[in-house]
Amino acid sequence: MNMTNKAKAVVLVSGGLDSITVLAMALKHGYQCHTLSFDYGQRYGAELVAAEKISREMGVTDHKVVNLNLNSIGGSALTDDAFAVPESETEGIPITYVPARNTVFLSIALGWAEVLNADNIFIGVNAVDYSGYPDCRPEFISAFEAMANVATKAGVEGRKIAIRTPLIDLSKGEIILRGLALGVDYGLTVSCYQATESGEACGKCDSCRLRRQGFVEAGVSDPTRYSV
Amino acid sequence: MNMTNKAKAVVLVSGGLDSITVLAMALKHGYQCHTLSFDYGQRYGAELVAAEKISREMGVTDHKVVNLNLNSIGGSALTDDAFAVPESETEGIPITYVPARNTVFLSIALGWAEVLNADNIFIGVNAVDYSGYPDCRPEFISAFEAMANVATKAGVEGRKIAIRTPLIDLSKGEIILRGLALGVDYGLTVSCYQATESGEACGKCDSCRLRRQGFVEAGVSDPTRYSV
Repeated sequence: MNMTNKAKAVVLVSGGLDSITVLAMALKHGYQCHTLSFDYGQRYGAELVAAEKISREMGVTDHKVVNLNLNSIGGSALTDDAFAVPESETEGIPITYVPARNTVFLSIALGWAEVLNADNIFIGVNAVDYSGYPDCRPEFISAFEAMANVATKAGVEGRKIAIRTPLIDLSKGEIILRGLALGVDYGLTVSCYQATESGEACGKCDSCRLRRQGFVEAGVSDPTRYSV
Repeated sequence: MNMTNKAKAVVLVSGGLDSITVLAMALKHGYQCHTLSFDYGQRYGAELVAAEKISREMGVTDHKVVNLNLNSIGGSALTDDAFAVPESETEGIPITYVPARNTVFLSIALGWAEVLNADNIFIGVNAVDYSGYPDCRPEFISAFEAMANVATKAGVEGRKIAIRTPLIDLSKGEIILRGLALGVDYGLTVSCYQATESGEACGKCDSCRLRRQGFVEAGVSDPTRYSV
């Protein structure tokens, strides 16, 4: 890659373990990275703070937060106070699933990519989430990419927009090992669905359980601050 | 259609001529309609007021407004104060094109459709806009529909989500004649990109020009309040 004229990428960052690993990978590959986070009525504000802080420290070109009140359409334990965040494993599509969330996030990333003339969008979907979330599957990513290429000026003008998912086939443990090799400080990332304002994790929700198992699988110590 | 157990639809309404005609069509066909508007940093707040007022008057089940600060990603004369709304015809993709707007709006409609278990989403894209806006073309709608059916619980469970575009092959004049036949009061709709707070139209922007030509083509009087 020509480093004096870097390819531009929009990178979706939540502030969690996966998305920050993706950002480290995109930077390592020489992309000029523009990170995008969403304030969508989720319960965990600490993740948003982490997203901005880590993005800046890792040297992104720009970081933006888009406000989007998805709680007005409801339907998820992450945005709707009528549901509690579950603290034990459940079957099927979890109640923490936010309807069409990745579709919405990728769509807004696509809008920003058009403004920037960026042809790459990175998102940290991965295999661990397949079984539960329809919009984490490879067939979803392919279908979104096909749509993106007819939805935009870039597509009309014959350029090709790529949705890049470097974690899609990795386990949580593998993701952690790749990130550590790239110098990611996981102590700064926040995965918990109900983290405290200072970023302390509950240790009980789905996201905390997956994260904990990931560090065990990777065989490295877990820097997360758990309240239990 | 069984009127005691109506099929549910999410209908995107901007408060303009096209989307209100679509709503009249969906209601006429017996759908239980849930209307959705966006406050996305556009300049014309009068359109949003019209969207809610007309929706309620036409008997929708529910109307929601999602806030979304697209102006933070910029790039359009409709959301970015750095650009002026053009008052003469331009070639190619107009500067009033909001990057990936229909993709974003349909994605959020898809999220609400999931929450409601609605399998139909109506949007007022039409032929007049083809040449300028990539995301008004039939190939975009097909690609979005394909994506929607792998993105959602409905798709995973084998139901079929349909993106319905009843205006897609109609001219502005034809749209107006269909709407009048369904009792639409176009005096209440707002199309202008820079309408005053009370809903008075500039008469000069692309949207005003198309609307004026439409009434001429339809051969009916134009109830719009123009300031010039």
